[in-house]
Amino acid sequence: MTINYPNGRQFVPPENVTSLQQNLTVSQSNRGMSLERELNQANSYYRTHGLANIHKKPTPIQIVNVNYPKRSAAKITEAYFRQASTTDYNGIYQGKYIDFDAKETNQTTSFPLQNVHSHQVKHLAEIVKLGGVAFLIIRFTRLREDFVLPASILIDYWHNQADGRKSIPYQIIATHGKKIPNAINLTLPYLKAVDELIKEQNI
Amino acid sequence: MTINYPNGRQFVPPENVTSLQQNLTVSQSNRGMSLERELNQANSYYRTHGLANIHKKPTPIQIVNVNYPKRSAAKITEAYFRQASTTDYNGIYQGKYIDFDAKETNQTTSFPLQNVHSHQVKHLAEIVKLGGVAFLIIRFTRLREDFVLPASILIDYWHNQADGRKSIPYQIIATHGKKIPNAINLTLPYLKAVDELIKEQNI
Repeated sequence: MTINYPNGRQFVPPENVTSLQQNLTVSQSNRGMSLERELNQANSYYRTHGLANIHKKPTPIQIVNVNYPKRSAAKITEAYFRQASTTDYNGIYQGKYIDFDAKETNQTTSFPLQNVHSHQVKHLAEIVKLGGVAFLIIRFTRLREDFVLPASILIDYWHNQADGRKSIPYQIIATHGKKIPNAINLTLPYLKAVDELIKEQNI
Repeated sequence: MTINYPNGRQFVPPENVTSLQQNLTVSQSNRGMSLERELNQANSYYRTHGLANIHKKPTPIQIVNVNYPKRSAAKITEAYFRQASTTDYNGIYQGKYIDFDAKETNQTTSFPLQNVHSHQVKHLAEIVKLGGVAFLIIRFTRLREDFVLPASILIDYWHNQADGRKSIPYQIIATHGKKIPNAINLTLPYLKAVDELIKEQNI
């Protein structure tokens, strides 16, 4: 539901990036699915196969007015989108706490940090400190490449923005991130990339 | 916000149990706080002290209509409560995945299983299988006692309902659950009880 885009963002219709990507890829088999739908599909697959239990959190809504009609559903007649205080996805995998957000960009040489909110970086940093597996899933829509980027890299670049660098170079993401492979039974088998991350970081 | 009560429940105003408890205890110092507010306070305390990162999930809302007035917030004009597919609370503590729901009852001799939804039991059972720390927080409002009950006990009683027993006896909860102690700086230091649970179950 596009109403949910961009995740956690307030008061704005879907970003151009997202809608552009959707138009671009609509004819490209399963790549026409939005990143969110692919992640929901993957999480559903992992859950039904008993491999992981990871869910997207509902979009936080500030409810102002509700009607309770007799013999029918309570109807919310006035409500507003609220800023999320965490990332969109969390759950359990390999006995570990998993926490991440998913981002898309149509850039090809770097990932602009403006796609990320400060509260998301703050949250991911807290999860890292507590021993969780924290990362971003970054989709380069035009390159048709998806990466799992450890939160540590995001956090470094975020805090160094003062130096003038407002994005993470593609090469850094390709080097320090784990590329999400293709799979037959699954559009976005991102936990394969998370396996590498866990192994490498020995979390 | 009472609109959010009962968590995840569809189309019904706050349960009598909850509102009764609120009326009963309004004059009883911090016990006048609802269980949800006490948990939010505890989670905020644990997070700011770097001990844990546990959040209540937003209530899932099905959005039907949104207006985008110029220069002001997008206004949701028609939406409905949806049934949650998970429990209300999850996060990380001691490097472990934590998952639970919170329930109140004004019964004094047992906890009625009708306070729990089948999808919540199913979800908690999946978390147990995956090695997470899954439990219920049960408040006996009239006894002024709060317990952390391992999901395993709930699951056993849930599946044995066919035998006619529709509730978990207080004695079972007091024996197999961990009582949440009182604390000076915190209304509901439930992670102290979770510590015991983790130690005992060697999760």
